[in-house]
Amino acid sequence: MKPIHVGLLGIGTVGGGTFNVLRRNQSEIQRRAGRGIEITVVADRDVAKARALVGDAAKVVDDAFAVVRDPDVDIVIELIGGYTVAKDLILAAIDHGKHVVTANKALLAKHGNEIFARAREKGVMVAFEAAVAGGIPIIKSLREGLTANRIEWIAGIINGTSNFILSEMREKGLPFETVLAEAQRLGYAEADPTFDIEGIDAAHKLTIMSAIAFGIPMQFERAYTEGIANLTKDDIRYAEQLGYRIKLLGITRRTPAGIELRVHPTLIPTKRLIANVEGVMNAVLVKGDAVGATLYYGAGAGAEPTASAVIADLVDITRMATSAPGNRVPHLAFQPDQLSDTPILPMDEVETSYYLRLRVYDRPGVLADITRILADHTISIDAMVQKEPAEGEDQVDIVLLTHRTIEKHTNAAIARIEALPSVAGKVTRIRLEELGRH
Amino acid sequence: MKPIHVGLLGIGTVGGGTFNVLRRNQSEIQRRAGRGIEITVVADRDVAKARALVGDAAKVVDDAFAVVRDPDVDIVIELIGGYTVAKDLILAAIDHGKHVVTANKALLAKHGNEIFARAREKGVMVAFEAAVAGGIPIIKSLREGLTANRIEWIAGIINGTSNFILSEMREKGLPFETVLAEAQRLGYAEADPTFDIEGIDAAHKLTIMSAIAFGIPMQFERAYTEGIANLTKDDIRYAEQLGYRIKLLGITRRTPAGIELRVHPTLIPTKRLIANVEGVMNAVLVKGDAVGATLYYGAGAGAEPTASAVIADLVDITRMATSAPGNRVPHLAFQPDQLSDTPILPMDEVETSYYLRLRVYDRPGVLADITRILADHTISIDAMVQKEPAEGEDQVDIVLLTHRTIEKHTNAAIARIEALPSVAGKVTRIRLEELGRH
Repeated sequence: MKPIHVGLLGIGTVGGGTFNVLRRNQSEIQRRAGRGIEITVVADRDVAKARALVGDAAKVVDDAFAVVRDPDVDIVIELIGGYTVAKDLILAAIDHGKHVVTANKALLAKHGNEIFARAREKGVMVAFEAAVAGGIPIIKSLREGLTANRIEWIAGIINGTSNFILSEMREKGLPFETVLAEAQRLGYAEADPTFDIEGIDAAHKLTIMSAIAFGIPMQFERAYTEGIANLTKDDIRYAEQLGYRIKLLGITRRTPAGIELRVHPTLIPTKRLIANVEGVMNAVLVKGDAVGATLYYGAGAGAEPTASAVIADLVDITRMATSAPGNRVPHLAFQPDQLSDTPILPMDEVETSYYLRLRVYDRPGVLADITRILADHTISIDAMVQKEPAEGEDQVDIVLLTHRTIEKHTNAAIARIEALPSVAGKVTRIRLEELGRH
Repeated sequence: MKPIHVGLLGIGTVGGGTFNVLRRNQSEIQRRAGRGIEITVVADRDVAKARALVGDAAKVVDDAFAVVRDPDVDIVIELIGGYTVAKDLILAAIDHGKHVVTANKALLAKHGNEIFARAREKGVMVAFEAAVAGGIPIIKSLREGLTANRIEWIAGIINGTSNFILSEMREKGLPFETVLAEAQRLGYAEADPTFDIEGIDAAHKLTIMSAIAFGIPMQFERAYTEGIANLTKDDIRYAEQLGYRIKLLGITRRTPAGIELRVHPTLIPTKRLIANVEGVMNAVLVKGDAVGATLYYGAGAGAEPTASAVIADLVDITRMATSAPGNRVPHLAFQPDQLSDTPILPMDEVETSYYLRLRVYDRPGVLADITRILADHTISIDAMVQKEPAEGEDQVDIVLLTHRTIEKHTNAAIARIEALPSVAGKVTRIRLEELGRH
């Protein structure tokens, strides 16, 4: 059988990895797919660099639109990134009857609904395993491996940069800025690290997983996002003393009132497996009603781990090519006419526990004032640590863990606590999740 | 579209779980599969019990052979277990053009090659996600999620009973027999626990994963199997002191000389994520050349976790039903005419590290004798701990960790060490794996 012909758009880090892995493991992949899979044309703005990478193995062009129109191309891999050109290219490829593989989480989180609708119309597949958690086959696991389950929640460490920063802050007792600079030096963080450290990248990935888990359209604009830039090494240390580790988690959960969709620093019990995922690694914990908790761990980024996911999609498309389009695995796991309109819950309505750190003047009655305010807002206290004041200081740290409560109650209580004359400055509030038993 | 009709053979623990989950999550599953999936007939020797479970929702019969011939049945689920009737039923179902879902790891490890050949001949699918690691979608991940990779090795905790026993021995400092009795009381171990504690169940599952990872036929008869019955709480404690945890691991690895296929107690560095998988939970660590290490964790047994895998297979078959048989995911991940004849390596030729515990008479020159013998067999020492003799005793424990060496060298050295007059009794030998960096 004639090999599948693939057009590769963008041969940067992941594109180069894809090209190399596909060539290196050519025979292994063909033994699995039953058919050769060859990148026959590469489009990149930097033609000279691209040619140096691919040699004579593929044609190199600078016009990506020529590739998506090329009648000799069966599958287009989009690795250009961004929202504009990438979107036009994917839609054009679909219009020309090509299947598409993309790692573009930002594009899918924002425009996935439109792209998938167009793909259904044209009877082609759009595959995106590489968009979430790099080489971990989490899209496949959610979309095919756990189909028996009513998914209850997902909690994931899905941004390697911020997990690296938090690991280093904890292990070395260093402040955020120092570790961020180190991560930039090592190439783990971009020159402009906003997407990673502000949780936006994680929210893109979480949006995709949430849609697949619950059968809802992509709704990135409703995601709540809070980054790690304000975490202090003191908070990390206090959390450890209480038996918790702080991770930037993406959490999506089904509740009777709606679906939670939120990214923020989170205390997790240290004994949980996912609390021990360190450095740039990713892990996703999924709770299904039948299977219980399952966890998927691996490299969330990098040339070859991401290439692993891109190529798995190529093999999937090759294998599914002969099936009736209506019988293929649906883009968002659920049949498109079966998506639900369950609302995304506003963050104010989310129920969780909290770590609260307050700096107070060391005088009688302070604690009574604080605990009365919490009680007024129906917030009960699970644990409390009062630190000794340092020599010659009249201020002291109080750390409280609350039981589960509604975010708006916590915010209201915090506003009143911050107004107390005995409380100095702002209250630090970090959410806490037990993540069930597993 | 008319629902898929399923015949269920055997409604014990997993069969009951399958029936219940399929009914409870009916609408969720149909929203995913695009088609209803209904168990229309159940066969069980105990008709009264079966009828009590299914009520009016399905026909109940006592003749399983009638089900596999039933023209109204599209897919047969085999949950009877064992080698004889189960095999006849599966082959008969295939001959009647039914797709088959089974959780029968023992049958597949021994007769999978024959069953898959028959299924190919008849153009039907045989799915078996539930045969390995319960609800964890590890077959799917290996067979579809990691297709880009040359798999280097797999190491798995794939028997919950023995992992529970080892966890309890370590946490409570109890001997094997006490914990086994406890596990039997809790229903985690059978009255005859041989299959679990001798590593046979794990070897069945490892055989299946090895075939899928490396593209070789099932070769259960070549698997090396060693159980946990001889482990002492002292060994577990010494290992902890050296920074290791003892797990019953199934390991399969590609080497230039052949493929390793072995189940035995293994020291793993405590800091590895897989070393922290406790109780009845399962986890499989897979090393691919592109993706690096990925880990899959979850419940390896139980009614609903196993049902989760059985039903995922039903949905897969429903989704793949219209694809050309040659394009479907191959049973063993690789195309049947592309299986390799790479030999399974005899255990004697396997390279690994070792934990050696010796009881010696506390006299000069003992250590020199031992280290000379190890050096003679080109075995070098990585770490050594000599315990103080207990009050009034003249014997003392020496614990050695070796660097990587060939098993036959270790065995030859142990034979010579045991012959030394200064060494009392047998040398305890437990293999040790660093499991790479990840």
